[in-house]
Amino acid sequence: MERNLNLEGSLHVSVVMALFSSLTPVFIAIICVLIGVILKKTNGEKEKHETKNKPVSRPWVDEDLKDGTDHPVEEEEVDEEWQGLDENVAHVPFFVERYSEAEMIKRSQAFYELLNKRRSVRFLSDEPVPREVIDNVIRTAGTSPSGAHTEPWTFVVVQDPDVKHKIREIVEEEEEINYKKRMGDKWVNDLKRLRTNWIKEYLDTAPYLILIFKQVYGRLPNGKKKTHYYNEISVSIACGILLAALQNAGLYTVTTTPLNCGPHLRALLRRPANEKLLLLLPVGYPKRDATVPVLTRKPLEDIMVVV
Amino acid sequence: MERNLNLEGSLHVSVVMALFSSLTPVFIAIICVLIGVILKKTNGEKEKHETKNKPVSRPWVDEDLKDGTDHPVEEEEVDEEWQGLDENVAHVPFFVERYSEAEMIKRSQAFYELLNKRRSVRFLSDEPVPREVIDNVIRTAGTSPSGAHTEPWTFVVVQDPDVKHKIREIVEEEEEINYKKRMGDKWVNDLKRLRTNWIKEYLDTAPYLILIFKQVYGRLPNGKKKTHYYNEISVSIACGILLAALQNAGLYTVTTTPLNCGPHLRALLRRPANEKLLLLLPVGYPKRDATVPVLTRKPLEDIMVVV
Repeated sequence: MERNLNLEGSLHVSVVMALFSSLTPVFIAIICVLIGVILKKTNGEKEKHETKNKPVSRPWVDEDLKDGTDHPVEEEEVDEEWQGLDENVAHVPFFVERYSEAEMIKRSQAFYELLNKRRSVRFLSDEPVPREVIDNVIRTAGTSPSGAHTEPWTFVVVQDPDVKHKIREIVEEEEEINYKKRMGDKWVNDLKRLRTNWIKEYLDTAPYLILIFKQVYGRLPNGKKKTHYYNEISVSIACGILLAALQNAGLYTVTTTPLNCGPHLRALLRRPANEKLLLLLPVGYPKRDATVPVLTRKPLEDIMVVV
Repeated sequence: MERNLNLEGSLHVSVVMALFSSLTPVFIAIICVLIGVILKKTNGEKEKHETKNKPVSRPWVDEDLKDGTDHPVEEEEVDEEWQGLDENVAHVPFFVERYSEAEMIKRSQAFYELLNKRRSVRFLSDEPVPREVIDNVIRTAGTSPSGAHTEPWTFVVVQDPDVKHKIREIVEEEEEINYKKRMGDKWVNDLKRLRTNWIKEYLDTAPYLILIFKQVYGRLPNGKKKTHYYNEISVSIACGILLAALQNAGLYTVTTTPLNCGPHLRALLRRPANEKLLLLLPVGYPKRDATVPVLTRKPLEDIMVVV
């Protein structure tokens, strides 16, 4: 650049130089400030960014993400009406038997008394249970409604002792990790208390383990993914019906959610990638010496509001 | 600054000036490049940031966030054993009546046949239903297990015709928005088909609307927030038991999830900020001319896997 200026004539140059030179300190000052501001701005954004995406400890979610079966967005889709599925389906008249009001009250009272006897039981005997009963309770769970009638559930019934024991090992190992993670918490100091959480004998002794998987998506005839709206709510509702069916049949269980073992158990049971473990129910009869914690349930006025 | 230099002596000044002046063009060039680089970097980060947080259409979630009742993290906490609540609770022996195996099979079969008659019914009559039956079915839902026995549910029973109509207006308004949002989709072109989704007459005609809220957190005696682990799964399970209780009593409903209306309905029903609408169940008798879509349920072999 200097060269060109020289070619054009030194007068020109000297004028320009003079102009620049007098301004130079100002230039530098301005530029320093300018750079300072820009750098500050950049960092500012970085910080904002970082605080925004502050990582939260989500062990099982991260595992599930590795497992490639986590589709939160799908569950957030708007689909107000579960029965708003394929509206081209033909409709047929629907007739139902009607009970008298007295009968309705009697039946609803009796059903409440039956289910109110249900307790989560962690001490299950190894007495055999007729498979036909298990088949019936799962058939019953299968009558549950589901988003757009996708029926997005798989009930894996484990009766093989070796597989049950492998499941126990996976679950207890996870519990040990949780235990160590929680070491800091004051309430964990009582080891004896914790062991009751950590040791899952019922996973060996219960004649059946029912592992309930939610199908987070399905496949269309053309092989494309088919979103299963509200699959977790649907499968949880089916589990509620399953719990009612077990109680009705005189069988007991404890509702466990080994979500952080999901991927391991899914692999062990060779379930496809679109299935995610929701609940694990050990099913059987209570042991003769079974105990349950002394718990009360909220009275009606605490759970019901009438408008 | 010039001034100070002058005071220190003009020789000094001229040297400095000369130095600067000769460098000025270089300075400017460097600084231009420097600024360019920094600005580019800033934008680059902005872009990355934007693509990372690419906004997904989540109408109800966004609303809920406004509503300040969305606590996804809480639901992701690890809590493998639902019964691992306060281990200091005393344990007592648990005795249960036992049915014969034949009786278990008979009972489980009968319960399946009863629940298999359940259908989601969208054409509900305005015939009154005994309140006592509603109380009993909600009592029954309240026997459901829940994470750490938090019982995180509130059942709002709406019988007031004005409130029912307000609910209908809110729900249908949301449906209209969904409708307009979906205008592009090919399957929406059939307006007649859509209307069956959009118009919710049952919200006026059903003698009761049961709105089930999940309590995403509770309050400890010290007033601090108490996380309700798995509150959505817990409340969904309770809804499954509620559906079984309704069917047992001869009452019908359709399971709807107006999640995007949650905040409006919560405000209308004056529920606290820790409660989020999960399901809305209109409850009553089917109309004499009620119809249901022709749907089949998956056979047992499609939902059960035995290991």
